[in-house]
Amino acid sequence: MDTYPSRLLERAVAEVSKLPGIGRKTALRLVLHLLRQEKKDIHDLSDSLINLADNVKYCTVCHNLSDTEVCDICSNPRRDNTTICVVENISNVMSVENTGQYRGLYHVLGGVISPIDGIGPADLEIDSLVARVAEGGIKEVIFALNPTMDGDTTNFYISRKLKEYDVLLTTLARGISVGDELEYTDEVTLGRALSNRIRLE
Amino acid sequence: MDTYPSRLLERAVAEVSKLPGIGRKTALRLVLHLLRQEKKDIHDLSDSLINLADNVKYCTVCHNLSDTEVCDICSNPRRDNTTICVVENISNVMSVENTGQYRGLYHVLGGVISPIDGIGPADLEIDSLVARVAEGGIKEVIFALNPTMDGDTTNFYISRKLKEYDVLLTTLARGISVGDELEYTDEVTLGRALSNRIRLE
Repeated sequence: MDTYPSRLLERAVAEVSKLPGIGRKTALRLVLHLLRQEKKDIHDLSDSLINLADNVKYCTVCHNLSDTEVCDICSNPRRDNTTICVVENISNVMSVENTGQYRGLYHVLGGVISPIDGIGPADLEIDSLVARVAEGGIKEVIFALNPTMDGDTTNFYISRKLKEYDVLLTTLARGISVGDELEYTDEVTLGRALSNRIRLE
Repeated sequence: MDTYPSRLLERAVAEVSKLPGIGRKTALRLVLHLLRQEKKDIHDLSDSLINLADNVKYCTVCHNLSDTEVCDICSNPRRDNTTICVVENISNVMSVENTGQYRGLYHVLGGVISPIDGIGPADLEIDSLVARVAEGGIKEVIFALNPTMDGDTTNFYISRKLKEYDVLLTTLARGISVGDELEYTDEVTLGRALSNRIRLE
């Protein structure tokens, strides 16, 4: 057990080391770094976190993080409002946005169905997705969940719920990552890439 | 450039990514992790940092971090108050304390002499160290600075200042780290280990 020269330091290190991937050594390094900065810098950091925690809003339509009632994407008239991309969380929205290739809307589930973690369909924003589709006007729902067992389960559950509506259901292509080597591709991925092979133009 | 769905999120990520070794991707991951926690947890983290920034004190004797005017080490009557270990910063105090082999006092310089970074002797707590020695009662000053050019320069500068007093000046032994392999030890270290070789008992 480390001995800290100050209880204030010890408490700060304990709090920072609660962050994922940050152990006590790294936490100590970060806190001592902060101590070397101006007091204002530490206040800026803390204020930005408190401000986020207290004032964060979620879009009432797609449940993405937003500063307003309806987020910038949902309220943008130039986006294609006939397509919804279903993602697990907020950073997935940012990942898809960063491709610069998607002009439709999103729907953030807030997780995936995971019996092991005790997360069922009722814990996710599935009903509100079905409601959006039921309202009409949606032509395609793209599933962009992680290619895991839980992601596939969630895909399957939602697609069954949406089957009764006249809407195209698609999922992201699975295959070999661009730049990957065949030699190091696992057999499941390689198998899927083979069965979903694409005709050369 | 990433597009953030919320300016509050963007600001928090910008602040967190100012920490050393934390890029924007990691910062985003940390902030989104915090958002998934209870509001109270974020407040606890922020409060601990603000509390540290606003209330931190430094020991008036050794300049180590302290909750009181004089730190627990300096005011501990069971410590050997005839020996001072000179270190660069607070985490070095913790490193030496964690060995459990040192029972003397400390003196935190707050850095080392580094002309490239514009740090001269006047920026460090050197005068107060000389004053402590001049006061009398100190038998040994142990230099525990990093074995770098700047550390050696600082050793040299301070030892010249202390030469006029009747005090033993020592430095940490340099040699091969315990557990290291000779094959991978650099030649300077190996050379020093050779010239400072120890008689087998």
